[in-house]
Amino acid sequence: MALKPLNDRVIVKRKEEEEKTAGGIYIPDSAKEKPQGGEVLAAGPECQTVKAGDTVLFAKYAGSEFSMDGEELIIMREDDILGVFA
Amino acid sequence: MALKPLNDRVIVKRKEEEEKTAGGIYIPDSAKEKPQGGEVLAAGPECQTVKAGDTVLFAKYAGSEFSMDGEELIIMREDDILGVFA
Amino acid sequence: MALKPLNDRVIVKRKEEEEKTAGGIYIPDSAKEKPQGGEVLAAGPECQTVKAGDTVLFAKYAGSEFSMDGEELIIMREDDILGVFA
Amino acid sequence: MALKPLNDRVIVKRKEEEEKTAGGIYIPDSAKEKPQGGEVLAAGPECQTVKAGDTVLFAKYAGSEFSMDGEELIIMREDDILGVFA
Amino acid sequence: MALKPLNDRVIVKRKEEEEKTAGGIYIPDSAKEKPQGGEVLAAGPECQTVKAGDTVLFAKYAGSEFSMDGEELIIMREDDILGVFA
Amino acid sequence: MALKPLNDRVIVKRKEEEEKTAGGIYIPDSAKEKPQGGEVLAAGPECQTVKAGDTVLFAKYAGSEFSMDGEELIIMREDDILGVFA
Amino acid sequence: MALKPLNDRVIVKRKEEEEKTAGGIYIPDSAKEKPQGGEVLAAGPECQTVKAGDTVLFAKYAGSEFSMDGEELIIMREDDILGVFA
Repeated sequence: MALKPLNDRVIVKRKEEEEKTAGGIYIPDSAKEKPQGGEVLAAGPECQTVKAGDTVLFAKYAGSEFSMDGEELIIMREDDILGVFA
Repeated sequence: MALKPLNDRVIVKRKEEEEKTAGGIYIPDSAKEKPQGGEVLAAGPECQTVKAGDTVLFAKYAGSEFSMDGEELIIMREDDILGVFA
Repeated sequence: MALKPLNDRVIVKRKEEEEKTAGGIYIPDSAKEKPQGGEVLAAGPECQTVKAGDTVLFAKYAGSEFSMDGEELIIMREDDILGVFA
Repeated sequence: MALKPLNDRVIVKRKEEEEKTAGGIYIPDSAKEKPQGGEVLAAGPECQTVKAGDTVLFAKYAGSEFSMDGEELIIMREDDILGVFA
Repeated sequence: MALKPLNDRVIVKRKEEEEKTAGGIYIPDSAKEKPQGGEVLAAGPECQTVKAGDTVLFAKYAGSEFSMDGEELIIMREDDILGVFA
Repeated sequence: MALKPLNDRVIVKRKEEEEKTAGGIYIPDSAKEKPQGGEVLAAGPECQTVKAGDTVLFAKYAGSEFSMDGEELIIMREDDILGVFA
Repeated sequence: MALKPLNDRVIVKRKEEEEKTAGGIYIPDSAKEKPQGGEVLAAGPECQTVKAGDTVLFAKYAGSEFSMDGEELIIMREDDILGVFA
């Protein structure tokens, strides 16, 4: 990941398709006002609860979108992340 | 529960029907602007007053709704939970 | 009381009739924008100034209403309680 | 006074007439948006600068009005009290 | 001064005329949205930078006006006072 | 300077003309919504990063304007000052 | 750089063209409501995560624009900087 997030920020790539987890199936919600699923690509030095590779549920409207290598990514605060899929 | 809530967050499944408790009958209020009843499915590592399995009363408009295995769940902060049914 | 309030929350039953106290008569004010009288049914573990059984004056618009055993009750923060009738 | 104010709250009875003090005459201002004069009837356990019996000037719109023994009283925070008449 | 200001409050009498000081002439600005000049009549026990007798510049819209002995006075927080004329 | 600023306040005289500095030319921006250049005339006792004589860039809309000896001056908080010209 | 930013402030020159980095290509987004790319020209004494020479992604609407030597620069808080390009 070319961009290193600062402080407690996290870079997330939104997941559009179903998420089969050990404990159940999470179906992404297209409605942006609902929490969204995604994969953590990079976590800042102050992050304590998430790390690159985690699949997470994050708050609606979290962070800012930017594009890198043609991919739409989101950079947000760790506190915007609601939970981690087991 | 496939989703582990972070920090002080709690995952709750709303209870639609009457709640017979040792001390009295709680009748869920359909009006969303009133406190709602529900069951805690998972509590984050920083939660101190509620745990999975508790039946609780939570504040109106608390948290965000998301779906898992076709179930409508709510993820909220512990502070949104008003009381626990004995 | 079947519902145990959490933290500094208090469950109060509104008093509609006159309150004869050792030091004077408090007449409840029907206007909801004025402070209201009521009896404390249960106080959370962090409450320090009120307890079950106290008759209190509480701030207008305090807390949320919910029904239990057909009774309209209010759950509020301890700080919403203005004073205790001697 | 039948009602014991909690924490840093103060119960005040508004003074309508002139206040002759050792150091000058305070003329109450009928306009509610100006500071008002009054007598402290009771002060909560956390009050440090005013006590029952003090004649005080308090901020406009301070606190909430309620009636006790047919008297219109105001319950406010100590910080709403601007000064004490010598 | 009959009224003792509490905490960090200051009682100020607005100065309408020019203020000749050792270091220059301050001309009061009639426009109320500009800082105003005045004399401190009394300072509360927590005040550390101004005292009775100081001529000061204070922020626009600072504090509340009240009348004492027919004089229009202003009671404000010490932090509303911008500077002291040498 | 006849007026001594209190706490962390600074008195600044706006600079209208170009500012030739060792490292480059700063051209004042007439548009008030842009940062402005000026000279510090006096700094309060709590100021740590600016002193009288510094040429500074300060935030748009910072502080309050007042007149002294016919000069339009601005009194602002130290935190409104963005940078010091070398 | 003629202007020394104070405290935790950073002076940034916006980058309009593509940013080829070791780890990928960042394409600046003309839309101002999206995060922007730029180069740090100077960082204040309290800055801990960025330094002059870093290429960074900063929050939309961050800081204030000013001109120096005919260049449009932005002065912002360090916390407005989202990430540093490796």
